Amino acid sequence: MALRRAGIVQAVIGVARRPETADVAIKLGAVDWATLDMFTAVSQADIVVLCTPARTIIRQIGELGPYLRPGTVLTDMGSTKRAICQAMETLPDGIQPVGAHPMCGKEQAGITAAQPDLYQGKVWVISPLPRSSPEAIATVEALAQVVGSRVIHLEPARHDRLVAAISHLPYLLACGLVATADVLASQDPAVWQVAASGFRDTSRLAASEVQMLLDILLTNREAVLAMVERFQTELQALADWLRHGEEARLAAELERICAIRRACCP
Amino acid sequence: MALRRAGIVQAVIGVARRPETADVAIKLGAVDWATLDMFTAVSQADIVVLCTPARTIIRQIGELGPYLRPGTVLTDMGSTKRAICQAMETLPDGIQPVGAHPMCGKEQAGITAAQPDLYQGKVWVISPLPRSSPEAIATVEALAQVVGSRVIHLEPARHDRLVAAISHLPYLLACGLVATADVLASQDPAVWQVAASGFRDTSRLAASEVQMLLDILLTNREAVLAMVERFQTELQALADWLRHGEEARLAAELERICAIRRACCP
Repeated sequence: MALRRAGIVQAVIGVARRPETADVAIKLGAVDWATLDMFTAVSQADIVVLCTPARTIIRQIGELGPYLRPGTVLTDMGSTKRAICQAMETLPDGIQPVGAHPMCGKEQAGITAAQPDLYQGKVWVISPLPRSSPEAIATVEALAQVVGSRVIHLEPARHDRLVAAISHLPYLLACGLVATADVLASQDPAVWQVAASGFRDTSRLAASEVQMLLDILLTNREAVLAMVERFQTELQALADWLRHGEEARLAAELERICAIRRACCP
Repeated sequence: MALRRAGIVQAVIGVARRPETADVAIKLGAVDWATLDMFTAVSQADIVVLCTPARTIIRQIGELGPYLRPGTVLTDMGSTKRAICQAMETLPDGIQPVGAHPMCGKEQAGITAAQPDLYQGKVWVISPLPRSSPEAIATVEALAQVVGSRVIHLEPARHDRLVAAISHLPYLLACGLVATADVLASQDPAVWQVAASGFRDTSRLAASEVQMLLDILLTNREAVLAMVERFQTELQALADWLRHGEEARLAAELERICAIRRACCP
């Protein structure tokens, strides 16, 4: 939708699994034409953008190679980059893969949640491969910029470590929070009545599409687990100071954290 | 601001610590008149609403008693209720205390963040004391309703247990998340560049006014620590399934949590 609105592509071909999705894509004006036949579609494309969950992207990369024309630029919007860029290395010579990840999203999934201005003002991470040509990289950068995003380059392992902290850990915290509130709710259903905007915001990511998040967690396991461990240590320190009434230390740490949060998300 | 807009009070007297705040309160139309002299102000009031951090509320309850006229309704907006309602019990006979806590707020503090429609559609918890007269309770309920809130009654200990789960735990999670991301940022400052709406929402509460939150944590210590412990167990279970590649169990639990979150915050 964003690309068609920008008017810089000749045509957008949408590939869906279900005929209903193809219908909606056409009705929404998200695509010029839609199909369930991925292989024929990609064989006619100059640029292929894979937007499925991470492990499906990896499988599709393995299947699509023989159908792509030489020179085709293949990029993706997967939320982890190490495993996906590794899979891209196996593509036939002549195909131009460039890993990518726009840093935006919503907890609603499916085409009816599509929003053409989603990318406006957001960061679009690009993880070029050693084999990616300057022209292929420039093409993917142009796609990101024309829909309003700012491009930054990150090597795949570095990307995955960063998003483990600022995206995958927050998801698990939101899930742990909902699970904790639910334990209390089984004793006192008034929990949900008193939940206000603080709970709503902190738990929002727990409503994310599970299949997408499961693929993310499983393709970024080590980095995610390292962040969970670090988080548990930080939370335990706050809890210990509270338990022992160490008010001055607790206050100093909460002030330090408050200042960081106000500075990083102004 | 909300009460004056509703037009049901004869006058709102604002009590501030600093002359600048008193000036702004008058300029914003939040009060009919403002003063730094709490004791003279409350001696003229029919209804006193304490809106300071929880431990300041407790101190003020101890100081204000002799200045209040018989029949004065004293209520508060403190985020914990057990310690505050205990302090209210010590007020002179003839004063009508009613503990209260509107379930809304923002991370910005101070009068310039005031918002007259903040209470619209929100839940306003009331914790009457055994000594609260039906008339005093009805007065506080009317105040809440006239600014657009829905009143629910909760006994103080029950209130504190519920908000430990849906408000105080989320605050500590937000703080732990920011502290964790900051550890990574000390090695790689790109962390803040890739932080998107997921991080922003999950960490929002970490920007809350520390003095207010510190008072909350210290007046609700046992309930908060119990929730932290429960949370750590829940998070550890998710991490362990991920670590051991128990995909089916992890997926089932994430689906269960996703369904709860979608149902509780539609």
